[in-house]
Amino acid sequence: MRMRKKKWAMPYMEAHGEYVLANPNENRGKWHEVLHANQLHVEIGTGKGDYLINMSETYKEDGWVGIEKDPNVAAIAAKKAIEDETIALSNKRMIVMDAENLLDWFAPGEIDVIHLNFSDPWPKTRTHKRRLSSKKFLDMYRVVLSDGGYIRMKTDNKDLFEDSVLYFLENGFTLFEFSVDYRRENHDEDAITEYERRFMDLGQPIYQLCAIPCRDREDVLK
Amino acid sequence: MRMRKKKWAMPYMEAHGEYVLANPNENRGKWHEVLHANQLHVEIGTGKGDYLINMSETYKEDGWVGIEKDPNVAAIAAKKAIEDETIALSNKRMIVMDAENLLDWFAPGEIDVIHLNFSDPWPKTRTHKRRLSSKKFLDMYRVVLSDGGYIRMKTDNKDLFEDSVLYFLENGFTLFEFSVDYRRENHDEDAITEYERRFMDLGQPIYQLCAIPCRDREDVLK
Repeated sequence: MRMRKKKWAMPYMEAHGEYVLANPNENRGKWHEVLHANQLHVEIGTGKGDYLINMSETYKEDGWVGIEKDPNVAAIAAKKAIEDETIALSNKRMIVMDAENLLDWFAPGEIDVIHLNFSDPWPKTRTHKRRLSSKKFLDMYRVVLSDGGYIRMKTDNKDLFEDSVLYFLENGFTLFEFSVDYRRENHDEDAITEYERRFMDLGQPIYQLCAIPCRDREDVLK
Repeated sequence: MRMRKKKWAMPYMEAHGEYVLANPNENRGKWHEVLHANQLHVEIGTGKGDYLINMSETYKEDGWVGIEKDPNVAAIAAKKAIEDETIALSNKRMIVMDAENLLDWFAPGEIDVIHLNFSDPWPKTRTHKRRLSSKKFLDMYRVVLSDGGYIRMKTDNKDLFEDSVLYFLENGFTLFEFSVDYRRENHDEDAITEYERRFMDLGQPIYQLCAIPCRDREDVLK
């Protein structure tokens, strides 16, 4: 999702450093404490923030961190949360940087759930390595996930989904949830964004999976 | 697929014991030899036989065995192959019995590819154990598959596909091919049956995967 450049984006986010963190590495190893979190959720590619806001308002006992590298999109997400006085910021934060630096911000075993929602499919073969489910990222996720921690992925993109299933299986993860048409059943526990709704309205399936490092599979199946 | 009972079915197949085997256990450990087969393919739930006939005529150097437990359906498959003089029977056979007895007919490591095409989804939970991709069957497949041997599965049924992916992963298999819309790309190497064509004409996706015992994964990825 490319957005027109917004002149106000960077100054706005810099002025709200309590929510959009300039130095997320300062929270490394302390996220649960900082957010008073039961579980720590991290959404990578948080876009305009609808999922982050909706889920963090529904699961207030958990901590939620949204990562979005495009400041023109991230500023919309930040503004939505900051300017709505009914929304508590205490259990959520944003990081407007490239997720390649994930290990600088989170300590090993610190994240309970990583969310990948409608990530950029990077369709051209030479750009596949930028996909958020590619090997480079999976190797990082394995480090920062807690015992029993896992990845929740949803997408409308067939190629991304098909390839991702194999990425997970080839890189030491296994699947414990898996759907080729996630929204044909009610999943009230999982927020539907405007973006997702568009595909549902067109009758297009949403693909979904949960992946867990093989070492932890027994934990989650208990 | 339930068929009306055909009086001619059993007598017809008994009269063609050279193709519909009364004692398949006599070939146990000798199938490659009997069928002069490069690779040994076994289709379980071969229905009216279109896939079996089409594929065995395309890949004549391989041996093909179709298993179908419903004699009223199997008789149609048998008749198609037997009465068409352009079709060579030398590289194919049928077994009209319940695949539960697979280990009686095939020796450990004897089968190169097991095909599951549009298997009965057995939708009710209490009948799931009859699915051809359920644990009981996977445990048998693991025994009869050769080194590097694998299972090819196609289905139009979402629930069966979703559950089967997890059955494979929970029971010592991994996936090396995987599609949520197999026919959106050309797969000329794989025959399309009349049954499959109906779903394609309705614009419904065909789900596909290849599963291999974890022990053999390295072989196939070479």
